[in-house]
Amino acid sequence: MKGLTIEEIHVGDSAAFEKTITETDVYMYAGISGDINPAHINEEFMKSSLFKGRIVHGMLTAGLVSAVLGTQLPGPGTIYLGQEIKFKAPVRFNDTIKATVKVIEKIQEKNRLILETICQNQDGTVVFSGKATVMPPS
Amino acid sequence: MKGLTIEEIHVGDSAAFEKTITETDVYMYAGISGDINPAHINEEFMKSSLFKGRIVHGMLTAGLVSAVLGTQLPGPGTIYLGQEIKFKAPVRFNDTIKATVKVIEKIQEKNRLILETICQNQDGTVVFSGKATVMPPS
Amino acid sequence: MKGLTIEEIHVGDSAAFEKTITETDVYMYAGISGDINPAHINEEFMKSSLFKGRIVHGMLTAGLVSAVLGTQLPGPGTIYLGQEIKFKAPVRFNDTIKATVKVIEKIQEKNRLILETICQNQDGTVVFSGKATVMPPS
Amino acid sequence: MKGLTIEEIHVGDSAAFEKTITETDVYMYAGISGDINPAHINEEFMKSSLFKGRIVHGMLTAGLVSAVLGTQLPGPGTIYLGQEIKFKAPVRFNDTIKATVKVIEKIQEKNRLILETICQNQDGTVVFSGKATVMPPS
Repeated sequence: MKGLTIEEIHVGDSAAFEKTITETDVYMYAGISGDINPAHINEEFMKSSLFKGRIVHGMLTAGLVSAVLGTQLPGPGTIYLGQEIKFKAPVRFNDTIKATVKVIEKIQEKNRLILETICQNQDGTVVFSGKATVMPPS
Repeated sequence: MKGLTIEEIHVGDSAAFEKTITETDVYMYAGISGDINPAHINEEFMKSSLFKGRIVHGMLTAGLVSAVLGTQLPGPGTIYLGQEIKFKAPVRFNDTIKATVKVIEKIQEKNRLILETICQNQDGTVVFSGKATVMPPS
Repeated sequence: MKGLTIEEIHVGDSAAFEKTITETDVYMYAGISGDINPAHINEEFMKSSLFKGRIVHGMLTAGLVSAVLGTQLPGPGTIYLGQEIKFKAPVRFNDTIKATVKVIEKIQEKNRLILETICQNQDGTVVFSGKATVMPPS
Repeated sequence: MKGLTIEEIHVGDSAAFEKTITETDVYMYAGISGDINPAHINEEFMKSSLFKGRIVHGMLTAGLVSAVLGTQLPGPGTIYLGQEIKFKAPVRFNDTIKATVKVIEKIQEKNRLILETICQNQDGTVVFSGKATVMPPS
């Protein structure tokens, strides 16, 4: 149940997690986060919007990135220090989102990793990009 | 149901949302995100850790920031463009987290706002800091 | 709120429970069980599989059998000792599953019952078969 | 996203998943399964019982076994054919359950594996034992 140490990780290593985001996810997330913005829970309001329907909370997608970091690379024991996020495109209900993380820098003396973090939908469109800073288990 | 336009918003304006984060929130979030890291769902494993027990997913806290932006300032119709996050301290089960956003820059010609985003627990400890970039409704 | 005793139960007695299994059930069950197998939560991955789409966790179906035993036959107070399961066919999202239990043996001196347990979908296809061993309330 | 094939798996291989089972899990599972037996959701009724309080659905624990089979050993693509279960001891709210699966037999010509499946609580007490039959991805 311990993830990889900085010695076991190399620049270029990557891991991914993929999930179809459903209405159930969005509705439960609205309750958990308190983000009851009509963009996510009001179909009537959104039908006439630019998006033509409800969209997924951007920050929900960020959770898939966190899942990869905390369960795969580096895995359990990782301390999540920071994340830069650019929301690039809307995620729609029933989109299948693939979150990929890839090590781009090792700061061995501070036990830190910088990872590129990207989420793409089923068409390959990047919906989320950014960088994560983590401290792997020692 | 429409939020504030850039004309109606001023540097220094702020808004907040506060919630007690429960075990229920964390367990449902684990399912939504797929983040079944033992840090969040395994009390035995975490008892002997630095944290002395399970902790909340950091990215769950980010959802409270998104809630303020999407429901209050600027409010409905806002497009969330980006977020920089620093996770500063662990959030424990049953902590009451206050997410505050404050406008620090207006880029009128591009219809963009930069907001300082902070989350604090019931003791005033900052657990999350960063900046949001949003496009208010026009 | 007490179920039936072994004296009140006869070989051949049966009871059933029927439920439409939704995407919501499957997504919440993924979180509860930690079973984030793509078979259940990744529509893109499963579209090209033998099953042509996401399927329900087999063990979720077993919960309907448990429901009949614990609420109807024998009912509250029953101690569930064992279950043999054969998963016979996939359960798809929105299938309506009928779980039926039927007493096939009484072991009076040990206060035990053996029940045949079957789950069928809306077309009558057996998706689950097996035997339960229970101790009815005394 | 593909699990291990029968060639990559050896008798004696094992994998585990561990989770603290909470009231939230039990209550959501009651809704999903329809198993509203007072043993699981009525504290007043159970206070005066042999168990001195509500207990977890036995079949919920079985879900952790399914999680190990479907995400780790053999992993994605596995077809779950059968499970024999003996419920050995009650699981209480907030128990941390470790589900372990271990390959005990390979039936190469039929592409089948038999695995011993055990769940233990934080004290090492076996709460669940049995055998799984699966078809690993080919």
